[in-house]
Amino acid sequence: MGVVVQNIERADAAVIAGLAECGVATVHEAQGRKGLLASYMRPIYSGARIAASAVTISAPPCDNWMIHVAVEQVKPGDVIVLAPTSPSDAGYFGELLATSLRARGCAGLVIEAGVRDIRELTEMQFPVWSKAVCAQGTVKATLGSVNVPIVCAGAAIDPGDVIVADDDGVCVVRRAEAPAVLEAAKKRLANEEAKRARFASGELGLDIYDMRPKLAAMGLKYV
Amino acid sequence: MGVVVQNIERADAAVIAGLAECGVATVHEAQGRKGLLASYMRPIYSGARIAASAVTISAPPCDNWMIHVAVEQVKPGDVIVLAPTSPSDAGYFGELLATSLRARGCAGLVIEAGVRDIRELTEMQFPVWSKAVCAQGTVKATLGSVNVPIVCAGAAIDPGDVIVADDDGVCVVRRAEAPAVLEAAKKRLANEEAKRARFASGELGLDIYDMRPKLAAMGLKYV
Amino acid sequence: MGVVVQNIERADAAVIAGLAECGVATVHEAQGRKGLLASYMRPIYSGARIAASAVTISAPPCDNWMIHVAVEQVKPGDVIVLAPTSPSDAGYFGELLATSLRARGCAGLVIEAGVRDIRELTEMQFPVWSKAVCAQGTVKATLGSVNVPIVCAGAAIDPGDVIVADDDGVCVVRRAEAPAVLEAAKKRLANEEAKRARFASGELGLDIYDMRPKLAAMGLKYV
Amino acid sequence: MGVVVQNIERADAAVIAGLAECGVATVHEAQGRKGLLASYMRPIYSGARIAASAVTISAPPCDNWMIHVAVEQVKPGDVIVLAPTSPSDAGYFGELLATSLRARGCAGLVIEAGVRDIRELTEMQFPVWSKAVCAQGTVKATLGSVNVPIVCAGAAIDPGDVIVADDDGVCVVRRAEAPAVLEAAKKRLANEEAKRARFASGELGLDIYDMRPKLAAMGLKYV
Amino acid sequence: MGVVVQNIERADAAVIAGLAECGVATVHEAQGRKGLLASYMRPIYSGARIAASAVTISAPPCDNWMIHVAVEQVKPGDVIVLAPTSPSDAGYFGELLATSLRARGCAGLVIEAGVRDIRELTEMQFPVWSKAVCAQGTVKATLGSVNVPIVCAGAAIDPGDVIVADDDGVCVVRRAEAPAVLEAAKKRLANEEAKRARFASGELGLDIYDMRPKLAAMGLKYV
Amino acid sequence: MGVVVQNIERADAAVIAGLAECGVATVHEAQGRKGLLASYMRPIYSGARIAASAVTISAPPCDNWMIHVAVEQVKPGDVIVLAPTSPSDAGYFGELLATSLRARGCAGLVIEAGVRDIRELTEMQFPVWSKAVCAQGTVKATLGSVNVPIVCAGAAIDPGDVIVADDDGVCVVRRAEAPAVLEAAKKRLANEEAKRARFASGELGLDIYDMRPKLAAMGLKYV
Repeated sequence: MGVVVQNIERADAAVIAGLAECGVATVHEAQGRKGLLASYMRPIYSGARIAASAVTISAPPCDNWMIHVAVEQVKPGDVIVLAPTSPSDAGYFGELLATSLRARGCAGLVIEAGVRDIRELTEMQFPVWSKAVCAQGTVKATLGSVNVPIVCAGAAIDPGDVIVADDDGVCVVRRAEAPAVLEAAKKRLANEEAKRARFASGELGLDIYDMRPKLAAMGLKYV
Repeated sequence: MGVVVQNIERADAAVIAGLAECGVATVHEAQGRKGLLASYMRPIYSGARIAASAVTISAPPCDNWMIHVAVEQVKPGDVIVLAPTSPSDAGYFGELLATSLRARGCAGLVIEAGVRDIRELTEMQFPVWSKAVCAQGTVKATLGSVNVPIVCAGAAIDPGDVIVADDDGVCVVRRAEAPAVLEAAKKRLANEEAKRARFASGELGLDIYDMRPKLAAMGLKYV
Repeated sequence: MGVVVQNIERADAAVIAGLAECGVATVHEAQGRKGLLASYMRPIYSGARIAASAVTISAPPCDNWMIHVAVEQVKPGDVIVLAPTSPSDAGYFGELLATSLRARGCAGLVIEAGVRDIRELTEMQFPVWSKAVCAQGTVKATLGSVNVPIVCAGAAIDPGDVIVADDDGVCVVRRAEAPAVLEAAKKRLANEEAKRARFASGELGLDIYDMRPKLAAMGLKYV
Repeated sequence: MGVVVQNIERADAAVIAGLAECGVATVHEAQGRKGLLASYMRPIYSGARIAASAVTISAPPCDNWMIHVAVEQVKPGDVIVLAPTSPSDAGYFGELLATSLRARGCAGLVIEAGVRDIRELTEMQFPVWSKAVCAQGTVKATLGSVNVPIVCAGAAIDPGDVIVADDDGVCVVRRAEAPAVLEAAKKRLANEEAKRARFASGELGLDIYDMRPKLAAMGLKYV
Repeated sequence: MGVVVQNIERADAAVIAGLAECGVATVHEAQGRKGLLASYMRPIYSGARIAASAVTISAPPCDNWMIHVAVEQVKPGDVIVLAPTSPSDAGYFGELLATSLRARGCAGLVIEAGVRDIRELTEMQFPVWSKAVCAQGTVKATLGSVNVPIVCAGAAIDPGDVIVADDDGVCVVRRAEAPAVLEAAKKRLANEEAKRARFASGELGLDIYDMRPKLAAMGLKYV
Repeated sequence: MGVVVQNIERADAAVIAGLAECGVATVHEAQGRKGLLASYMRPIYSGARIAASAVTISAPPCDNWMIHVAVEQVKPGDVIVLAPTSPSDAGYFGELLATSLRARGCAGLVIEAGVRDIRELTEMQFPVWSKAVCAQGTVKATLGSVNVPIVCAGAAIDPGDVIVADDDGVCVVRRAEAPAVLEAAKKRLANEEAKRARFASGELGLDIYDMRPKLAAMGLKYV
């Protein structure tokens, strides 16, 4: 505890931008169904969609001091990802800190704890994915660490990993794997685009994917 | 497991349309306060309101294969109702399957599990009531059944039963009881319409329902 | 049980109006981080923000009779606060009762139980904070009490206390403490206003609050 | 509501006794993995194991009147199964009612609600599987029904169905299917008995079930 | 925050001892079904049964400093009741503090948070009712208060109120009401004793309580 | 997916044995309050206390095939730690697999999912910490991996890390850190031993830890 890592490596900006366009569900599939954060991580308003490099925070329960420390480490386009060392629903984050982060070009916040000032954050369109909404404040009394490996909502996250988040939840992509995941995601989208037209014309998945023989072989009975 | 019932009976289309206009709370009252699914079944966006005949699916946990099988059984105006045989929050359903269902005239989905592509489903205005939002995908490996009796979110549902769903949740009406329930619901609405005007004018429920004598008899004290 | 207290004292209307403008998070901080209701108390739609004098109800589980009794006790600007004597998610409240309350000038409802008619309540813009949305109805069979002290969602509330509620949740301010809390909240807001401009210009909290020496003294290491 | 069915059919006593010896996990497997109640149904003390014919109760929330009505319908060896019409954790059942049920030869209670007098029930060794322990009492004010079909903890149960319950939870076996399920369960146990000796001697499941070729075919890599 | 009230009044020792013999369910009924703490407050081992005067603690989240302050205020036979000002499952309490409390004659602990050293506490037979078991430790950094009014697990508790706790949960009796509640509880027990013999002999509650005419009048049908 | 790592390094046996004696709460404190698994991981019976090297499993939801694969990798004294790739409460594990593991000298199981055969596992005294008890079975259809890094109940675990588990929950100690953590834990125990005697003699923590000046400096008031 009590360490701030100042220089972290980030994925290529074009790769990150590409992942943002793909969205969580596609990226999650494209990397082999790993990296998803727990489904209790929900957006505070609908419609936000980001991809960004993670600046991580390991914070004590009910103590948001380290967010102030982390702001200084944020580069434009980064997202802050905070995991408490013990479960807490307290409101670590509100509109003043969002103003500070926006001034630094921060893309959003992912936090396995509570946030407040929901109305103001929505008006600002500052994207947040959190475990809870709670007006209970926090203290600034104990050290945590910035840019160390964390486990957030059940997923292991290293600083500089790419976070993809939208209305479906939050997914982490390992920095080194980001280019390959983007390639796989694009292929998946292209494949889906072709499928979509066939589905829209009324064709059945049973035929598009040639499922009937396999279903029959497994014993499916039509009565 | 592994059975698809191809011909199911449905309630009269006019009755179903009538139930849609009444809404969940009224229909639930009108049929004697039964048939409500558990309150964790929530719409993925606000404002949808449907009534439709149930095409039921009993599906293995984390396996959405049977949805493809069920699509072929859907007639225009039907709703798919899926219950997993073991609890699962995985994302069984997304935008591609919704495209397929819309092409078949499907009215929506009720699923005691997870869904994904929330943004796209909202843009399409394809109504879904689910237990969870989760980007985690599913497999296509094990057989389930289509159009068999199921228990979904604590309610017993037979194929062809009428599902009523809106922002208040989801309610099932037995097919054979649907005409009588609609009659009762219409009476209830007419009765409420008269009451609404009196309430709006400032009259009290205490007087409208003549509650004062009964309250006094039970010993209510004003101090 | 079975008591209706007819005359309760209320806080000054100007003080109440002032607290509404401050919002839950600020008021909660201003009164020393006490009085917050449990975070499962959520608004049924986004954007509502009220402060009002509490007309309290202690109600039996699954029985909404006392709401009708309480309506008569409501003065313009009051909010009804209902706590069941045993946990219940049933739908105590819907559009008809909201019509009645609106006719009396009621500002909203806070209820540690369920509500229904969400679509209609949203169209009316009648603000409700509840523990659940549930179409399950209630009975009118057993007495409760109106304007007695209650514990609602973990907070002790006396009749006439000021309830502040918005998208962040619900907070109670003791009637006698309301003027002092408003003063403290205003100071807090003024202080935040000054801070906001500095944050927006890119200044860091580390410098605004002079945190660097204390962090160094506690052993924070930059690597 | 308000119906008591007095004559119900029960499964053969020897079949019921046989199912008791098999236990929940084996019976659940033997009938094709159906009929399990939700896993929040837990025994109030460890070690009880029963099988019995269900006398069902559909009860109003927080109202235990119908248990008194049901006691008269109990025959020696029956189990009472209670589902509330709306969720309730209240304590419907305690030591006095257990004394009454024991005098009638009742085998136990399965209740999707709360119970109390845990210490006394444990001393009596009266088996109970419940959703909650809660000292909150109930009223006797509203009618329910006895021996009608119910949905309890997510499972559909008809009067006279066989309930199997132990430390693993609760499972329902359809009355008509009970003899066949017992046969299947016995075969399963005999098969497991042979396997158990091989496992105990250190043989691996990989070899006992000849899994290695299939694992290799699916691509499992040893590194 | 930051106040220790040193002199509190306690109920009569004989009254407290009497309430301990009655148990939670009986006491709760005897005082009109009020004062029960939420049912998530569970004993860490089975069989403990106490009644004691409350020494209350309002503690910051994840901070157990005030327990040390409270120990000095404990008189033989008291129970400590701790409510955090924000939800916390951290382990505030373990075997060392139990050793300290036992040396002071303390009867037990009721805590709406976590405890640890379960094995050692069970061996010592030091009774604890808690919301969670969690090995996560706490800090000693922020002031709270001792012997101030608190809300614990949804119940309002004043210092010196009588806490009754057993395997059914925890109930609070107002100090001033304790003698009357004990009288009512004793009457209830005597009444139950007479009923118990009748139930044990096979008599039905339907007859003991003369319920048949009322059930018939409400329309109960036997078929 | 689909990888079995056959050779993993383990911590020194004497170090592991030493950690077992220290217990979860002490070890967790000794390593700086990190490594604790979520508090929903509970033992299936009271009194078990182990420390062991982790053989890890990343398993598909509702599929226990990889446990059979992992058995072969277990050396005497190891513990199996299983995390599903998607949440599942299904019963992955029962008495037959426990028989197989015991024959291999396995010390126990930690599983973020369900188990069954609780009665038999308790009789065998085979220690299990799980998220759920559930009789629902699993399939053997999809590959997972053995001895890869996993996230289990919120904690990152590498194969060969030391798992410490008892009635307080489960904690992981990094293999490389185990000797240092044991040293710190022993010091902590020795320190506590000295403190325990002082507490038992009635001395106060306020004096033992010299807290009074700091409390006074922070403004604690005695009234």
